[in-house]
Amino acid sequence: MKKKSRFLHTPIEPFVVEGGLTADAVLARMERISFQGRNLASARRIWNRMLEDDVTIFLGMAGALSAGGLRLIVAHLIAHRYVDCLVSTGANLYHDLHETRGQHHYVGSPLADDAALAEDQIDRVYDTFASEEEFVANDNWIAGFATTLETRAYTTREFLYQLGRHLWDTTKRDGILTAAYRANVPIFCPAIADSSIGMGLSQARQKLSGAGHIDVIGDVVESANMIIRRPRTASIVLGGGTPKNFINQASVQAEYYSPEVSGHRYALQIVTDVPHFGGASGSSLEEAQSWGKLGAASPRVSVQSDATVALPLLVSALASTASAAVARRKAPVFTLASRVMTIDGQTVPHDRFEEVNESAV
Amino acid sequence: MKKKSRFLHTPIEPFVVEGGLTADAVLARMERISFQGRNLASARRIWNRMLEDDVTIFLGMAGALSAGGLRLIVAHLIAHRYVDCLVSTGANLYHDLHETRGQHHYVGSPLADDAALAEDQIDRVYDTFASEEEFVANDNWIAGFATTLETRAYTTREFLYQLGRHLWDTTKRDGILTAAYRANVPIFCPAIADSSIGMGLSQARQKLSGAGHIDVIGDVVESANMIIRRPRTASIVLGGGTPKNFINQASVQAEYYSPEVSGHRYALQIVTDVPHFGGASGSSLEEAQSWGKLGAASPRVSVQSDATVALPLLVSALASTASAAVARRKAPVFTLASRVMTIDGQTVPHDRFEEVNESAV
Amino acid sequence: MKKKSRFLHTPIEPFVVEGGLTADAVLARMERISFQGRNLASARRIWNRMLEDDVTIFLGMAGALSAGGLRLIVAHLIAHRYVDCLVSTGANLYHDLHETRGQHHYVGSPLADDAALAEDQIDRVYDTFASEEEFVANDNWIAGFATTLETRAYTTREFLYQLGRHLWDTTKRDGILTAAYRANVPIFCPAIADSSIGMGLSQARQKLSGAGHIDVIGDVVESANMIIRRPRTASIVLGGGTPKNFINQASVQAEYYSPEVSGHRYALQIVTDVPHFGGASGSSLEEAQSWGKLGAASPRVSVQSDATVALPLLVSALASTASAAVARRKAPVFTLASRVMTIDGQTVPHDRFEEVNESAV
Amino acid sequence: MKKKSRFLHTPIEPFVVEGGLTADAVLARMERISFQGRNLASARRIWNRMLEDDVTIFLGMAGALSAGGLRLIVAHLIAHRYVDCLVSTGANLYHDLHETRGQHHYVGSPLADDAALAEDQIDRVYDTFASEEEFVANDNWIAGFATTLETRAYTTREFLYQLGRHLWDTTKRDGILTAAYRANVPIFCPAIADSSIGMGLSQARQKLSGAGHIDVIGDVVESANMIIRRPRTASIVLGGGTPKNFINQASVQAEYYSPEVSGHRYALQIVTDVPHFGGASGSSLEEAQSWGKLGAASPRVSVQSDATVALPLLVSALASTASAAVARRKAPVFTLASRVMTIDGQTVPHDRFEEVNESAV
Repeated sequence: MKKKSRFLHTPIEPFVVEGGLTADAVLARMERISFQGRNLASARRIWNRMLEDDVTIFLGMAGALSAGGLRLIVAHLIAHRYVDCLVSTGANLYHDLHETRGQHHYVGSPLADDAALAEDQIDRVYDTFASEEEFVANDNWIAGFATTLETRAYTTREFLYQLGRHLWDTTKRDGILTAAYRANVPIFCPAIADSSIGMGLSQARQKLSGAGHIDVIGDVVESANMIIRRPRTASIVLGGGTPKNFINQASVQAEYYSPEVSGHRYALQIVTDVPHFGGASGSSLEEAQSWGKLGAASPRVSVQSDATVALPLLVSALASTASAAVARRKAPVFTLASRVMTIDGQTVPHDRFEEVNESAV
Repeated sequence: MKKKSRFLHTPIEPFVVEGGLTADAVLARMERISFQGRNLASARRIWNRMLEDDVTIFLGMAGALSAGGLRLIVAHLIAHRYVDCLVSTGANLYHDLHETRGQHHYVGSPLADDAALAEDQIDRVYDTFASEEEFVANDNWIAGFATTLETRAYTTREFLYQLGRHLWDTTKRDGILTAAYRANVPIFCPAIADSSIGMGLSQARQKLSGAGHIDVIGDVVESANMIIRRPRTASIVLGGGTPKNFINQASVQAEYYSPEVSGHRYALQIVTDVPHFGGASGSSLEEAQSWGKLGAASPRVSVQSDATVALPLLVSALASTASAAVARRKAPVFTLASRVMTIDGQTVPHDRFEEVNESAV
Repeated sequence: MKKKSRFLHTPIEPFVVEGGLTADAVLARMERISFQGRNLASARRIWNRMLEDDVTIFLGMAGALSAGGLRLIVAHLIAHRYVDCLVSTGANLYHDLHETRGQHHYVGSPLADDAALAEDQIDRVYDTFASEEEFVANDNWIAGFATTLETRAYTTREFLYQLGRHLWDTTKRDGILTAAYRANVPIFCPAIADSSIGMGLSQARQKLSGAGHIDVIGDVVESANMIIRRPRTASIVLGGGTPKNFINQASVQAEYYSPEVSGHRYALQIVTDVPHFGGASGSSLEEAQSWGKLGAASPRVSVQSDATVALPLLVSALASTASAAVARRKAPVFTLASRVMTIDGQTVPHDRFEEVNESAV
Repeated sequence: MKKKSRFLHTPIEPFVVEGGLTADAVLARMERISFQGRNLASARRIWNRMLEDDVTIFLGMAGALSAGGLRLIVAHLIAHRYVDCLVSTGANLYHDLHETRGQHHYVGSPLADDAALAEDQIDRVYDTFASEEEFVANDNWIAGFATTLETRAYTTREFLYQLGRHLWDTTKRDGILTAAYRANVPIFCPAIADSSIGMGLSQARQKLSGAGHIDVIGDVVESANMIIRRPRTASIVLGGGTPKNFINQASVQAEYYSPEVSGHRYALQIVTDVPHFGGASGSSLEEAQSWGKLGAASPRVSVQSDATVALPLLVSALASTASAAVARRKAPVFTLASRVMTIDGQTVPHDRFEEVNESAV
C-alpha cells in the first residue's frame, strides 16, 4: 500500500452536537472543522497567545459595529485590557456616544420605505434605525464640549480622552469612550473629519472662533512613537477601513526610525471584504507581510465573517478561557490627560519621532 | 418635544459579555443586535417555530459542508428529526460516505502548493485535503454496490436509501447517509450525475451492462407528491445550489396539482451568495414570494454567513432549547425501502402526480 | 543605487481615455492595469489561444444569464464555434426556450413589491420579471413534446438535441437550443431535474405512462468518452454551479480510463463566488490543479465579475479579433441525432467507457 | 386571455454580438439586459444627465485605483470637467504622485511569495508590486515639500493644491494631482493621516518644528460651504470608504445651515461591498435617502463591480457620447491657491459655515 502523503496529518474532526455547550466548548469543537469556522476557532487561540505574550495589542474597528450592538463588547475588551489601544472610525465612537448619552438605536428592517423614513427624519443603517433629531442634538453637544477646550490643535488621542472624560462625568454610563477614559486606553481616530464627530467639531467653530482644531498628523507621530517605545505589537482588526491601515502604518513608520520594530507579532482580522479587488480593507495578512506590516513568522488568521456573527461567540469564549491570562498580563500603562501622553512612565511625543540609533539598541 | 416616530419601538440591546455563557445564551443576547448576528438569532426562533408547528421540514445542503466538518451536525438533525427530508448535492453525500467508510479529510491550507499536491495525488478543497487514491476506491465501492441492485432505474431517493443501508450494514458508523437510513428520512439528490457518486454509478456500467440507472425525473414527481400529501412545509437551506431550487420547485410543482399547497410556511437560509447577480443561490426570500415558493406571510430569515461559522452555534443552541419541541413533534413517518415510498401510510408515486380536485378538498 | 528587484519587470500602464474606442481596443488598454480589469483582458488572450490550439472547448453556464439577456451571446458562441460543447443549468435552457418561443422577460426592479407581483402571477429574478402563466404554458409545451419521444431513457445530450430541433422547426428563431441544434453542438444538463425543464418532463408522465425518462448517468459516460476520444480540452465557465464541476469531472473521469488525458489545457472562469467558503462554484483554478482537473502548466484566469458586465465586452472584443482564428479552427464534428453520438466520425458510447490501454497509446 | 400585467412593459433585449462595436455601442446594447450589466448602462445615462444639468459633481475614490492603473482615467475626468471636486483616500493620491514622479507600479501576482517579496523590499497590492525604496523616497520628498509651506494648518484642499502645483512644476506630467492643479479642481482627503501622504507630513516635523499641520475640520466646513453656495449637487462614488461618506456628509452638513440644500440630485456608485453587513461602503442609495443624503426622487444607480472592469468601459463610452454635453457645461469656477478658496467668485470659508436664513432665500 502506498505510503501516506506528508500533506495528510491532522484529520478533520466533525463537529458533534450536544445540548448545553458553552461558547468556549463550541469554539473548541470548531478547531478541526474547515473554512471560516476553523478560522474563528484559530482566532481565539491566537488572541490567547497575544494575551500571554508581552505585546501591545491594537484593536481596529470599522463598519457600523456600535450602532449594531457590539459597543459593549468593545468596552469590555478595553476595560479588561484584552486590548491596549483602540483605532476606530468616527462613526463607531459617535454611535457609542449616542447610546452612552442615554439614547438608542432601534431594531428596523432593510426593507423599510426610505422615503417614509426620510419624512419622519429616521436614519437607517441597513436594518437599524435612529432619530435624526437626536443626532442633531449630539452634534450640538459635541460642538458645545469642543468649545470648552483650549483653542489649539488636539490629537484625536487627546481629544477623545477628554471627550470620554466629559461623557463619563455627565452620564456615568459604560461605553467605548467612557471605558477607554476609565482604563486609560488611548483611542485614535485618523478619519475623524469623516464622521458626525467631525461635524460636531466643525460646528464648534460657529460657536467659538478657533475651536475644533484636530492634529491628525500628530496622531501619526504619536502612534508610531508608541511602537518605538514598545516594539512588540499585535493587531486585531474588525472590518478593515482606515483603522486597519492606520495600525499597520504605525508599525511601518516606527520601523523607519527604530531597527527594533519588525512588524506585528500577531495578527487577527475579522472582515467581510475580499482581496481580489485590491482594496486595503480586504487585503490578506500574507500581503501585509510583503510590506513588513506583519513579521514573516507571525501567527495570523483572517476570518471572513460579519463581526456581529463572529464576535459575540469569540469574545464569550475568551471571557471563559482567557481570564487567567488577562489577569497575569502586564499591559502597558498610559497617561492620557495631557498634550503629551506617556507609556510606562516615558513620554510619547507627537511632534517628532523618537529616533533609536541602531548601535544604541 | 416631537412625538417619537412610529419607526422607533424596539431599542437595540448591545451584547453584554460574560464568561461561561452557553450557546443558547449567546444567541439569546444576539436577538436585539443588528445585521447578520440578529438574523442568526432569528434563525433559531424560526426553526423553533417550525418544530412546534405541524410542517414537513426540508433541509437543503450545498457547498463543501461534509468535507468541512459539518456532516455529523446534519446527521444529528436527521436522527433527531429536526428535519424530515434532505435535499443534497452529490458531493456532500460522497464526502459523508468517505468518512463513514473510516477515511478522513485532513486539515490543510489554502496557501498550499497545488502542483506539489497534484504530484502526491492530494485533492484540495480550500483549506482541506483528501487522498485521491481513497476517492478512487470509494468510486469503485459505489460502482460495486450499484451492480448489486436491480438493473432498472432508481429514483435518487430509493437509491440513496439502499446506499445508506449498505453503508450502515458494512460500517455501523454514524453519518448523513446512515442516519437517514436508520431514521427513515428520504434524501433527494437532483444533481447526482454531477458528483463522484454519479461517477461511481457510471463506472457500474463497466462492470454490469444496464447498471447505474437513475430516474431523476421520478424525484421531481415524488418530491412534489410528498407536498401534495402534506401541504404544510418549511424550508431550511444551507448554501444555495440545486437543493435550494429543488425544494422550492417541489412546492411550486405540487401547487400545480393541489389547491391546498401555497408555498412554504417558513423559510430559513444560511447563504454566502448575494442577490444582485441574479443567480438562484443568492436569491432573496422576498423574491421567492413572487414565485409562490414561499407564502407572503411566512416567517423567514436569510443569514449571510459561512455555514461553518453559523451552524455550530445555531444547532448547539437548538439542542438546548428545542429538545422539548422535538420530543413533542409529530414528524411524518416514511417507508423508503421500496420503489414506491409511503408517507404516513399513504403511497407517494413517482410516475404520476396525485391530482387533488379543488371541489374535493 | 540598489539593483532593481527581479519582481519588477513589467510596469502597470494606466488606461488612457479616448473617444471612439472599439471593445477590443478597450480590452487591449486593460492588459496592463490591475485586479479584475487585467484578468478580463487576460481572458480574451487565453480564449484566443484556445481557438488557435487544437482543443475541444467546453462552455459551462450557470446563473440567470438567459433571463438576464445573454442568451444570444451564448448562441453566437455556439453558432460560430467559439465553443464546442455546452454544459448548462436547466434554467438557462428553459429561459432560452421561453424567449425562442416568442415570449419575453421584462425589465423590472429589485425593489418591487413581491406580494403584489405574486398576486399578478409575475415571477421575479432580481431585477427581471416574467409571466408565470407563460411559464406554465412552456412546461406544458415541453411535456407535450416529451410525449412524442420514444418511451425510453434519453441522455440530456440526446433529449436537448431533439428539443432544439423541435424548437427550430416550430419557431425558426435564434437561441441557445436552436443554435446548438443547427451547429451540431452537444448540450449537457446534469441537473436537468432541478429546473422547469425537469418539471415539464415530469408532467409528461401525466400525459403518457413511461414518458420523461432521462439517463443522467449516461451523460457522465458520454462526456468522459468525448474527452477520451479528444484528450486536449479547454474549459470556459460562467458562474460556477453544476456546469463547472461537470466539465471538470468529465476530464477526471476520462483520465481514469486513458493515460492521454491530463486535465484541461486552458481554463477561464468568470465567477462572482469566492474560494474561502469552500464551495465548488467559487473554487480557484489553482485548487483545480490539485485534482488534476487542470494541467499544472495550463494558462488560466479567473475573472471575479458579474457575467452581465464582463461577457458583453469580452465577446464583442473577440468578435473583432478572433474571427481569423475561428475561421481557421478545425472544430470537432459531431452527429447528435441518435442515441449514440459521434465525434469526428467515431462513436461515443454512453453505456460504457472507452478504455485506452496505456501500451496501445 | 388574461390581460397583461402592469409589471410587464419593457422586454429584456438580449445583447447581440457584433465585431467592431465601439464602447458606447456595447453599453447601448446593455441598456435592456439585466443585473449589473444593465446597471452599468444606466450609470452612463445618469452621468450624462448630470453633465446636462446644472449641478456640482463630486467624485469619490477609494480602493487601490491609482496603483491599479485607473489614475489617468480620473485625471481625464478632472481635466475635462466630467467632475468638479474630488474626494479621495490618501493612498490613491500617493500612488498617483508615485507615478507622476516618473516611477512605476508593476504587474505582479496574487500568488507571489510574500516572504521573498519582503526580503526584496517589494510591497504587494494584490497582483501589483512596487518598490519600498521608492516609497521611502516619496515620503521624504513629501516631507521636504511640506517644510517649504508656512508653519500653519492647511486644509487638505489647500495643501493638495500646493502639492499638485509643486508636482506639476517639477515633473510636467499628467496625473490626478497635476490635473486637479491645472484645472483648478479641489481635492479633499479627509483621512489623509491614514496614508503615506500622512506619513510624509509626519516626517516633515522631523525636519522642521511646526511643519505638517493639517486642518481636517476645516475641510468639513469648506466642503459644506461649497454646497451652501451651490446647492445642486451630484455624487459619483468609486469604491466606498471615507470619500463616499464625506461627500454625503457635506450635503447633510450644508442642509443644516441652508434650507436650499436637499440631498444630491443624482447618485452613482460603483462598489464591490454589499449592504447586508451594515458598513457605509456597501450601503445602498436607498438607505442614503433616509438620511437626506440623496433626494427621494433623485436618479440613482449602484453598480456592483470592480472599478477596474467597469470604469474603462464606462468612461470610454462617455468620452464618445458626452463630449457635447461636457462642452456645453457651465462647470463651477474655483480659485484654490489661497487659504480661502472661491467658487464662481464667492469666497468659501473654512472657519465658519455660511448661514442662509430661510426667509432670505
